[in-house]
Amino acid sequence: MAEKKLVEAITSMEVDFAQWYTDVVKKAELMDYTSVKGCMVFKPAGYAIWELIQKQMDERFKATGVENVYLPMFIPESLLNVEKDHVEGFAPEVAWVTHGGLNPLPERMCVRPTSETLFCDFYKNDIQSYRDLPKVYNQWCSVVRWEKETRPFLRSREFLWQEGHTAHATAKEAEERTIQMLNLYADFCEEVLAIPVIKGRKTDKEKFAGAEATYTIEALMHDGKALQSGTSHNFGDGFAKAFGIQFTDKDNTLKYVHQTSWGTTTRLIGAMIMVHGDNSGLVLPPKVAPTQIMIIPIQQKKEGVLDKAYELKERLSKAGIRVKVDDSDKTPGWKFSEQEMRGIPLRVEIGPRDIENGKCILGRRDNGEKIECNLDELETVSATLLDTIQKDMLEKARAHRDAHTYVAKSLDEMKQILDTTPGFVKAMWCGDRACEDKIKEEMSATSRCMPLEQEQVADTCVCCGKKATKMVYWGRAY
Amino acid sequence: MAEKKLVEAITSMEVDFAQWYTDVVKKAELMDYTSVKGCMVFKPAGYAIWELIQKQMDERFKATGVENVYLPMFIPESLLNVEKDHVEGFAPEVAWVTHGGLNPLPERMCVRPTSETLFCDFYKNDIQSYRDLPKVYNQWCSVVRWEKETRPFLRSREFLWQEGHTAHATAKEAEERTIQMLNLYADFCEEVLAIPVIKGRKTDKEKFAGAEATYTIEALMHDGKALQSGTSHNFGDGFAKAFGIQFTDKDNTLKYVHQTSWGTTTRLIGAMIMVHGDNSGLVLPPKVAPTQIMIIPIQQKKEGVLDKAYELKERLSKAGIRVKVDDSDKTPGWKFSEQEMRGIPLRVEIGPRDIENGKCILGRRDNGEKIECNLDELETVSATLLDTIQKDMLEKARAHRDAHTYVAKSLDEMKQILDTTPGFVKAMWCGDRACEDKIKEEMSATSRCMPLEQEQVADTCVCCGKKATKMVYWGRAY
Repeated sequence: MAEKKLVEAITSMEVDFAQWYTDVVKKAELMDYTSVKGCMVFKPAGYAIWELIQKQMDERFKATGVENVYLPMFIPESLLNVEKDHVEGFAPEVAWVTHGGLNPLPERMCVRPTSETLFCDFYKNDIQSYRDLPKVYNQWCSVVRWEKETRPFLRSREFLWQEGHTAHATAKEAEERTIQMLNLYADFCEEVLAIPVIKGRKTDKEKFAGAEATYTIEALMHDGKALQSGTSHNFGDGFAKAFGIQFTDKDNTLKYVHQTSWGTTTRLIGAMIMVHGDNSGLVLPPKVAPTQIMIIPIQQKKEGVLDKAYELKERLSKAGIRVKVDDSDKTPGWKFSEQEMRGIPLRVEIGPRDIENGKCILGRRDNGEKIECNLDELETVSATLLDTIQKDMLEKARAHRDAHTYVAKSLDEMKQILDTTPGFVKAMWCGDRACEDKIKEEMSATSRCMPLEQEQVADTCVCCGKKATKMVYWGRAY
Repeated sequence: MAEKKLVEAITSMEVDFAQWYTDVVKKAELMDYTSVKGCMVFKPAGYAIWELIQKQMDERFKATGVENVYLPMFIPESLLNVEKDHVEGFAPEVAWVTHGGLNPLPERMCVRPTSETLFCDFYKNDIQSYRDLPKVYNQWCSVVRWEKETRPFLRSREFLWQEGHTAHATAKEAEERTIQMLNLYADFCEEVLAIPVIKGRKTDKEKFAGAEATYTIEALMHDGKALQSGTSHNFGDGFAKAFGIQFTDKDNTLKYVHQTSWGTTTRLIGAMIMVHGDNSGLVLPPKVAPTQIMIIPIQQKKEGVLDKAYELKERLSKAGIRVKVDDSDKTPGWKFSEQEMRGIPLRVEIGPRDIENGKCILGRRDNGEKIECNLDELETVSATLLDTIQKDMLEKARAHRDAHTYVAKSLDEMKQILDTTPGFVKAMWCGDRACEDKIKEEMSATSRCMPLEQEQVADTCVCCGKKATKMVYWGRAY
């Protein structure tokens, strides 16, 4: 049973979710380890997903007036040090360049862990008047954070991301942009990645180093753990004051700008794997599947079979579908396994008898359903099915998320839930940092966010019993 | 004469070409200096050109089977040291990371100046059998070379590029891929950037550190200096032997792979500026112009003018043209100057009288020509004009290049040409390194390439008078 080898090689997710994850990443050929400790290779199948994410997210950015730029990857130490909270947050985890060529540098520089300081240094000169505002800039690049423990897509010393950095004339406009990007991220996750998210605000303990307010989208993985999937920060005028970014307003007075930043990373690929994957491997939403349909010829040595397969490929390709033919000399069973491992949303099975009957079989990756299809309707049926798969995957993920979202009114209840049926735990909070610390200490759970849509699930704080001010999503997180 | 300010602010190219270049880069808002010595900011107008280059080049890559990947930005010192010629070429100009977070690294790492060593380290594990070949991978990323003198787009400590790295079963296949990519680059330069290039092979003195053969495309700038605009290297099995990259071939024997690499950088933008620009600023070929048409309303406060401008924008945009309306409160003259400075290929002037007559004026950036156009034919006339501009720009650049390509039969002749009417000098060469060194020493000119299309312009070496073996393009270069 050669066909089974690929599948047998991956650990079942019920047995060991972490190992299942690593197996899928490796067997679907998304990523690999390198000789550079803590850094990974994005292999073609993994990078192609990132390209599709980039393309579709970038289009959404540009529709809101975002312009792309590119700033240096190095930050001189003195520049990183300008904003106090920011440097405290990042200095312990940056990589330092100390030599250029054969000579020591007069001042060491870090490889950017994030670029707030560089954008501020740039805006300081580039912004003079209200006419220069707003600045709504973004860059696609890689950043470096010297992490101790790393994991493909989720945490590595170098990762790919986009970072938006904006400057506005008023506090109101900055807050609007912060929320606008949060909503854009949430819509992107749902509509493109088929991942439902909770939108909310981070507690002060969890917010970004230097931010006034951090907003987040939080997703629930298949194992019930949470994954922060994108953040949007409002800096107020804190950075502007530290860096001296001022403009002459219409009333001819000098004012500080208000700034935001927002980012998503290749961790979105990790989220997709852990939300949609199953024991046969990866399951990709059609919108980010580099190959949407794999055509698998049956008895391909028989006359006309391969020709028909290529003809169908031509037709589907013309209809705007990303399609391939697996014409390798492997058995059909092996090809099925590979297509499943790689998460290709739809397969077309076409053999001599199908050709005779003017039909083929379509196989859905997400739910295993098989559909007979007239060959002359292949384009429309396929396109409709890809849409359906995209929608069904979101609904399935949403149902899983909702089924694993609980309410707790006491710490005992919260612990009981997290230890037996992990998921999001909705619980009230008094707003006191001590309670948040205690929950983290006692149940290894963190506050994921204070959701924008608040509910009153109890009257008192789940931890101290005092009057509650906020409903919070708690969870164990990646 | 407020309209003139922008134009007056740039130095005439006949007075000081280097200053003209810097002025254009700055006034067209392509790039700016930063607090990070030797590193630049790509501003929106500059980065948007790079995005258009990337998109169109990437499509051409993929059509030849290239797959994109992403490898780490760091190279451990021991890995850089594996191939002797390579490390000698690059070690003196790399940036070294010595600390991660608060701790010194066990082994220092450089920021990639190029990624041959990383790809080799990756291929060593990824390639086992002939079935794994060929590997035709590429990455879009930034690289760092610790240059002393820097210049926007042409030379900076960090720059953006693509680097392709391939592995093949045979020497023949590697050589074919090397030439295929050279041709792809040449076609791209001509068809997209409207820059004619000379394809040729570098002499041993000028070839890439570690390569068996380096091929290049060489372009001639407006000032008669040459610019190396892309290179394609054949490594033979040199790196494979140094790194131990072997595969089991069909005949069941273990063989070394044959490798290539090829790259182009953001210096292509510098080439475009210096080939097409004029004393009014930048001139962009339509295919890489982020804005192809600027609509400039005349007497825009008069009723209906702005509405008509927006309507034309809608129509042109629907026809697939990148178009904007300049509806700012500047004077039309000022707007013309800005559109010219930014190199926007075509402008549409539309005022009350034009609307009345159902016409508008189209103004070509490349030659200043004005064309009257019926409003109802605007889409087709514009599209045709953009095509014409693209073609005319190439022809103009080719005519300039040809008019500045000379033959020299003696060193005196060569010096005379280079000192008075700089350009490419075609001259015969004996193949001896000493002659090449002498020419560089005495006339600050380098061998640009041994063109693939050889001509016999004389019988003897331009330098030593011995029998010549090759015709070489010589020039002073950026």
